[in-house]
Amino acid sequence: MAGTAGALLLLLAAGLGAALWPQPQWLLQDPQSRCRLSSRQFRFSYANGSAVAPGCEVLDGAFQRYWQLLFPPGHKEPSGSNVENLCPNLLVSVAQAGCSGYPTLESPENYKLSISVDLMLLTAPNIWGALRGLETFSQLSWKDEVGTFYLNKTVVIDFPRFPHRGLLLDTSRHFLPLRAILETLDAMAYNKFNVFHWHIVDDPSFPFESLVFPDLSLKGSYNSATHVYTPNDVKMVIEYARLRGIRVIPEFDTPGHTLSWGPGKNCLGMRKQVCKDSKLMTLLTPPSSSACSSPTVFLSVLSILEPTHNHTSFVNAHKPPVDAFSWTSVPVLCFFQVNPNTVIHVWKGNFQQEMSRVTKAGFRALLSSPWYLNFISYGQDWLEAYRVEPLAFEGSAEQKTLVIGGEACMWGEYVDATNLTPRLWPRAGAVAERLWSNQTVRNQEDAYERLSDFRCTLLRRGIRAEPLYTGYCEFDAL
Amino acid sequence: MAGTAGALLLLLAAGLGAALWPQPQWLLQDPQSRCRLSSRQFRFSYANGSAVAPGCEVLDGAFQRYWQLLFPPGHKEPSGSNVENLCPNLLVSVAQAGCSGYPTLESPENYKLSISVDLMLLTAPNIWGALRGLETFSQLSWKDEVGTFYLNKTVVIDFPRFPHRGLLLDTSRHFLPLRAILETLDAMAYNKFNVFHWHIVDDPSFPFESLVFPDLSLKGSYNSATHVYTPNDVKMVIEYARLRGIRVIPEFDTPGHTLSWGPGKNCLGMRKQVCKDSKLMTLLTPPSSSACSSPTVFLSVLSILEPTHNHTSFVNAHKPPVDAFSWTSVPVLCFFQVNPNTVIHVWKGNFQQEMSRVTKAGFRALLSSPWYLNFISYGQDWLEAYRVEPLAFEGSAEQKTLVIGGEACMWGEYVDATNLTPRLWPRAGAVAERLWSNQTVRNQEDAYERLSDFRCTLLRRGIRAEPLYTGYCEFDAL
Repeated sequence: MAGTAGALLLLLAAGLGAALWPQPQWLLQDPQSRCRLSSRQFRFSYANGSAVAPGCEVLDGAFQRYWQLLFPPGHKEPSGSNVENLCPNLLVSVAQAGCSGYPTLESPENYKLSISVDLMLLTAPNIWGALRGLETFSQLSWKDEVGTFYLNKTVVIDFPRFPHRGLLLDTSRHFLPLRAILETLDAMAYNKFNVFHWHIVDDPSFPFESLVFPDLSLKGSYNSATHVYTPNDVKMVIEYARLRGIRVIPEFDTPGHTLSWGPGKNCLGMRKQVCKDSKLMTLLTPPSSSACSSPTVFLSVLSILEPTHNHTSFVNAHKPPVDAFSWTSVPVLCFFQVNPNTVIHVWKGNFQQEMSRVTKAGFRALLSSPWYLNFISYGQDWLEAYRVEPLAFEGSAEQKTLVIGGEACMWGEYVDATNLTPRLWPRAGAVAERLWSNQTVRNQEDAYERLSDFRCTLLRRGIRAEPLYTGYCEFDAL
Repeated sequence: MAGTAGALLLLLAAGLGAALWPQPQWLLQDPQSRCRLSSRQFRFSYANGSAVAPGCEVLDGAFQRYWQLLFPPGHKEPSGSNVENLCPNLLVSVAQAGCSGYPTLESPENYKLSISVDLMLLTAPNIWGALRGLETFSQLSWKDEVGTFYLNKTVVIDFPRFPHRGLLLDTSRHFLPLRAILETLDAMAYNKFNVFHWHIVDDPSFPFESLVFPDLSLKGSYNSATHVYTPNDVKMVIEYARLRGIRVIPEFDTPGHTLSWGPGKNCLGMRKQVCKDSKLMTLLTPPSSSACSSPTVFLSVLSILEPTHNHTSFVNAHKPPVDAFSWTSVPVLCFFQVNPNTVIHVWKGNFQQEMSRVTKAGFRALLSSPWYLNFISYGQDWLEAYRVEPLAFEGSAEQKTLVIGGEACMWGEYVDATNLTPRLWPRAGAVAERLWSNQTVRNQEDAYERLSDFRCTLLRRGIRAEPLYTGYCEFDAL
């Protein structure tokens, strides 16, 4: 990977081009060679031979979004530009047909991007990889002082280090309006996150509107008219996420954290009449009757609360299937009683020890404990998240392969729509790069420069990302 | 003051009425007696005999603003409401004529508010007190479940504990667009702050556009086309603040923190040709040639940089005149060389010791060191600011009288328009109440309830104030 750093330095030394976030696995740029990107000429188009063609909602939609991001409203092409050296259209070629499905843990996300004045080509095995490549493409454009956009001659060969790169939002401690969730999904896509972990209900409120058990939100939400997610809202979130290559994992945390499921603590916090329902009862009962009950996320709960939903995106999308995610704090002995397909989410304690213990027991592991972004402190605390190395724990090579990724968590005790975005971005970007980029990408000064630049990109795209430190962005005076 | 607490408890026990922030000095409410506030009937009007009459921009404007805050756009009067028990107009009676001036450190801000179905009357010695009373009035209205607004029978007798209740914004480390400053002034008025301390320039950038020395911002701002305050911007800030009873103290920090005044460090950080100007040179030279130079805020600098401005609001408004504000860290001996009219701003160190030392030397003091709100931590850190007692230092009663107030500070290393509002509000409210309300108002549980309620009021008024803890506001799902 030495070539990566070399090519990058060459570019920075020339003072040209845009910073990329997260850093691709392999990047080669020629600072001397560039083409001009003109909004009058440039289009995204499907390459001849692509297995996916116009009519694919995922890519058609992405072409439209990224064109608007490249040429923001109010953008004015400098007059008198000549027609020489114009960048051609970006040809997108996808090997595998299929546009209507959901991304899975196993979906490849690699892509190859070649940019030159003669040919601009993005190739990917499937639409999800193409989405990642489009994001990178959009970050490569840069503008000179008179407002002309350029692309340097570039080759990017890229793929994620970990397949599960998640972000958790908590909509129980504070309700987050739909637009806040959709905006977060946009920003996630810009950061190449691919899992939205929706901690949808918890003790304080139950905002999920179930057609089967309407009382749960009628009596358990903050306000059942305004502070709820209707079935249509949930469908919209799932589809909005799908169009950006993001899986939604809605979490119905049980058997703990269910106070909002009903007043009173009898019957595990639920109303008796609801609790009598055998299916729901199952959810609220620990997997075994021993002392080994652990807070467990049942993916299948949604199919009980809302059978009309399309669950393929999060229930059947795993091979081998993931029956459940479980938060750690499971005593070692209990592992014997947990379904081996369970993914263990490491959320507290010394993460090196926990990761070692969980993978030694043969479970797949997700890392979150060092990435609780709701914890804030004065100064550049994104660096703490950035410095984390998920595989820096004692264990065999085989154990390391069981680490499928991690998640940045934004718990909601002190967070609602007023402060969610600036608390989350660009800090969560530190986690995004750690989970996407090569293990060797660790230079903090370089990361500071690129992340500062990327946060300006986020601002320009309408995401109120807070500053890393003293300075300014072109657009922050608006 | 026992009566205050008693009356308040009576009201809270009845579950009626609105919480007030900051808590008035004296409040009596009858939870059993109320009138209905109707947008069809209710108006603010000048009382007969008031020395201030229609045409006074300060109060005319306030009547309009507060009417819109009482009855937000989209508000619908419940149909079928009968005309009985309607609240009458609020009569406003101001004793002292005058509407075109600026508030000063000595301006009284007391007011008396009487609300009953027979008569609603606000009396104040001047327009500034009337503004404070209008804010309190607007916080007294509450809404039942069908959307009818009410006012309980109420008497408020109120005045500030300290005359200088300030908030500092830093527009050098990050530029804050004009609208962010104006929004802050709105929120300040809701909190009864009365001083906007504008830390306008510093090392990182010089956004103040001077007609006399245009190079200062042309070469010292982040972007001289977009990241500057024009003379008109500054005038607008001063007038917008005046209309809300807020003084503007623009700070041109010298002799330190002047890197942005010119490239290079020769000539105390300024360009030579500018530095040759004798008036500016004076500003950059310590008051004496001894080792006793201290970072000193020269109020008069604005009159050199921009002689066309109306400076009466901040230069000549003090009796005795304040020639300068000085940040502490002045060695004790140096006090002998400092003009005795200087106000010393206590910004670091053990604040009890500093306040004691400064007032013992006979200087008036402003407290800020425990109120650096740019310092953030996880959890309810507003409580730390709230617990501060400015007079809890060793010193005589006479020394205590020298404490003219304090300022909440929001330094800009990590703050710009993306995160300013949720970081500032409602946390700065803790400082506002400490500086306005009686010394005995210290109950943290009561403050939590009122401040949570008040932050919902701020949200409804369009201020993105962040939550204190888990919960919701009626409007936060929008």
